Amino acid sequence: MSSEPSKPVQIGLLGRGNVGAAFAELLTERGAAVEAATGRRPELAGVLTRSEGDFGAILERSELIVELMGGTDPTREYVLAALRAGRPVVTANKQLLAQHGDELFAVAREAGVQLRFEAAVAAVIPIVRTIQESFGVAEVARVFGIVNGTTNFILSEMAARGAPYGEVLAEAQRLGYAEADPTEDVNGADAAAKMAILARLAFHTPVGLDQVSYEGIETIAPDDIAYAKEFGLSLKLLGVAERREDGISVRVFPCFLYGGHPLAPIQGSFNAVTVQGPAVGEVTMSGPGAGGLQTASAVLGDVVSILAGEAPVHETRAELPVVGDVPSAFYLHLEVADRPGVLARIATVLGEHDVSIKSVVQRGTGEEARLVMVAHECLESRFAAAVTSLSELPELRTAPRYIHVIEDEE
Amino acid sequence: MSSEPSKPVQIGLLGRGNVGAAFAELLTERGAAVEAATGRRPELAGVLTRSEGDFGAILERSELIVELMGGTDPTREYVLAALRAGRPVVTANKQLLAQHGDELFAVAREAGVQLRFEAAVAAVIPIVRTIQESFGVAEVARVFGIVNGTTNFILSEMAARGAPYGEVLAEAQRLGYAEADPTEDVNGADAAAKMAILARLAFHTPVGLDQVSYEGIETIAPDDIAYAKEFGLSLKLLGVAERREDGISVRVFPCFLYGGHPLAPIQGSFNAVTVQGPAVGEVTMSGPGAGGLQTASAVLGDVVSILAGEAPVHETRAELPVVGDVPSAFYLHLEVADRPGVLARIATVLGEHDVSIKSVVQRGTGEEARLVMVAHECLESRFAAAVTSLSELPELRTAPRYIHVIEDEE
Repeated sequence: MSSEPSKPVQIGLLGRGNVGAAFAELLTERGAAVEAATGRRPELAGVLTRSEGDFGAILERSELIVELMGGTDPTREYVLAALRAGRPVVTANKQLLAQHGDELFAVAREAGVQLRFEAAVAAVIPIVRTIQESFGVAEVARVFGIVNGTTNFILSEMAARGAPYGEVLAEAQRLGYAEADPTEDVNGADAAAKMAILARLAFHTPVGLDQVSYEGIETIAPDDIAYAKEFGLSLKLLGVAERREDGISVRVFPCFLYGGHPLAPIQGSFNAVTVQGPAVGEVTMSGPGAGGLQTASAVLGDVVSILAGEAPVHETRAELPVVGDVPSAFYLHLEVADRPGVLARIATVLGEHDVSIKSVVQRGTGEEARLVMVAHECLESRFAAAVTSLSELPELRTAPRYIHVIEDEE
Repeated sequence: MSSEPSKPVQIGLLGRGNVGAAFAELLTERGAAVEAATGRRPELAGVLTRSEGDFGAILERSELIVELMGGTDPTREYVLAALRAGRPVVTANKQLLAQHGDELFAVAREAGVQLRFEAAVAAVIPIVRTIQESFGVAEVARVFGIVNGTTNFILSEMAARGAPYGEVLAEAQRLGYAEADPTEDVNGADAAAKMAILARLAFHTPVGLDQVSYEGIETIAPDDIAYAKEFGLSLKLLGVAERREDGISVRVFPCFLYGGHPLAPIQGSFNAVTVQGPAVGEVTMSGPGAGGLQTASAVLGDVVSILAGEAPVHETRAELPVVGDVPSAFYLHLEVADRPGVLARIATVLGEHDVSIKSVVQRGTGEEARLVMVAHECLESRFAAAVTSLSELPELRTAPRYIHVIEDEE
C-alpha cells in the first residue's frame, strides 16, 4: 500500500435496480475502506441500464465490470465482451452462471481474468468462496441447503400459524418476501439454478440446469406440516447435491427434517448451506439470503478480492481503545429467607442501582427458598454494585450468583 | 495450469503431533487435487519436531512453511525466520498470533509474503477467511461465537443431564473432548486468544491478549441451568467482540441465550461464530471446532490459497454423470376407509415393494380417518412404485400425499 494518492480504480456498473443502486451507494460509503484494503480508491466509471448508457464506452473506461442487470440477454454478451477485453467481472446473476457457466468460465480462463459471483447464491453468506477457496481441494461428499428465502418464509409461517399456502403467499407478497410473480421461487426453479452452481463448484464437474430435478411447495398442505410435527419433523425446501457411487445427484424438493438437523433451526427468509465431507466434517453457514444491501455487500467483497489480488497480510487501520465496562442483561440467583417482604426489599435495592427486572420467579420454601430473575440490560459496573449491596442484606442466606444474558433483539 | 509435469512444491512441516500427522496424510491423499487446483504437486520437504530435524535445512529446501508445533517458543523464532527468508507461512497456532500478531504481521508485510491462519480459530469453519476477505471492507458491528468446543460439550451435557460440572468434565476427559489439564479451556483463556484474533481482523485494530477479559465455566451450577431453562434460556461460553461508541470491547463469559439466538442451537463440541454488521446483516457459521483432520483440512485450504495466488477461475476436473434415482426416506399421508384391516392391507403393499415403515399414527375416524407414516430410506423409484400400487387400493379415499424426509444420522 502506497501512501501517495493512488489512481482510482474505475468500475463499470451494469444495472441500477435494487442491488445495483445499493452497490453504488455502498461503494461510496466504503470507498475509504476499499482503499485501505487494496491501495486503490474505487470510482464508478459509468452505469449502464436497459435504457441508458453506452456499454462500449463504459467498458473502455473500466478496469472491472460489475454485472447486476440480471437476465441472460443481453447480459451474457456484455459479460463475455468484458472478459474478452481482459476485464475481471463480478456478477450476482445465478441464471447467467447456471445456464452459461461453461462458456463464461472458459472465456475467463482464456483471458486470464477473474469471474467472481459470491452474490449469485445465498447473497452475503460466503458459500461460493468457502467451497471454491477454503474447501477447494477438500473431498466434498454433499452440499445441501435452504437457498430460497421466499419459500422458507412461507413454510415457516405455515408451520407457525397453520395457515394454508395461498394465504401465506399473499402475506409474503404484501411484506416483500415474495415477488408479484412468485413462480420461479415457489416451484423450486430458483433454488435449482443455485444448486447447479454449488454442485459444479463442489464436485468440479459441469452441471447443466436441465440436470437438476426440482419440485416446489405449491401443493404442501398445512395438515401435513401439523402431522409431521408429531414425528418431530419440520418442513424446508431443500437443495441437495451429493456424490454417489455412480456420479452425482442434484435435486430440489420439499423435505421434512428431524430436530437435530443443522438446517432445522433456519426460520423465516434466512438461507443456510451445509457442506459435508470426510475431512471438513459438517460446516453450516446461515444468514440473509436476499436483500439489496446484503447482496451488494457480497458483490463488494468480490470486487475487493479482485483488486487485492493475492490476499494481503493483515494490517491494522486504526488503534481503537478497548473498553471494559459495557451493558449486559443478567440472570440473578438469590437464596433468600422465606418471609414476607423479601422480594420488595430486593427489588428496592436493585431499583436504587437503576437495575430493572424483566422477569422473576420464586422457588422453594424455608431453607430452599430462592428468587431467580432476569434483569434488563444495564452497565456491568452498575449491576456489580447492585450485587454488592444485595450481598449485604440479612435476607440473603448465601452470596448472589449471576450470569450474563443476551436479550432478545425484539 | 500446464499439462507438463510441474516441479513439486516443497512444504516444510513444523510439528508432527495430532494435527501435523493428519496434515501430512491429507497432503498425500489430496495431492492430485492440490495439483489440479494450483498446477503444483505438493511434497513434504521435511518435518521438524522438538527432538528431530534441522530447521535451517528444512527452511532451505522449502517454498512454504506449515507450523503445527504449537506454543510460542521456539515457534515464534521459526515463523519469523521463515517469513524473513521470504517463505509464506501457514499456522494453526492461536497463542502465537494472539501474543505476537503485531510483530508477525509486520514482518510478513515487510517480506511481502503471506501469513495464513484459518485453523487458529474454530478449525475448519472458515471464519478467518470470511472476516478477512468476504467482509474485509464491510463495517462489522459485532463478532460473537462459541469458539471452545470443550466448554460447549460440558455445558450441553450439564443441561441435558442435570449433572454437576466436575462429573461432566471427567466424562469429557474420558471421551477426549477435554485435555488432562483442561485449565485453559474451562477458564476461558483459550477462547480469549481466539477472540483477540477475531477482534483484530474484524476491527482492523491491534488487540492484545491482556485486553481481553475472560471468565470460565468452573463455577456454573446445574440448578442455574435448570432455572434459566424456565425462562427459555440456554447456557453457552460466549466470546463477544463489538464496536462501541468509545472503542471496542472483547470479552469471554458464560452467557444465557434466548431460544431465537443464532447460537442457541449449537450443541456438543461444535463451534459457531456470528458476524453482524449493517450491510452483512447476521451471518453465522458452525461446524467442528477441533479435531486433527478438521484442523489439517483448514491448514490445507490455506496452503492451496497461497499456491494458487490470485483465486483461479473455476475449472472442471471431471465430467460426473448426474443420476436421477437416489434413496430417500418419506412421509406418507393416506386418507383411508375407517374399517378393520386397512393398516394391514397397506403395510402389505408397502412390504411387497420393500418399503419399510419407521413410524405410523392413525388419526380421525369415519370420513376423517387417515394414516400418517414415515418410511425408511429406499430408492425413490421403488417408493414411487409403492405409491402407485397404494393408489389403486379401494381403501384409499383420496390420492396418497408424500414428502421427502431426511432421517437422523443415528
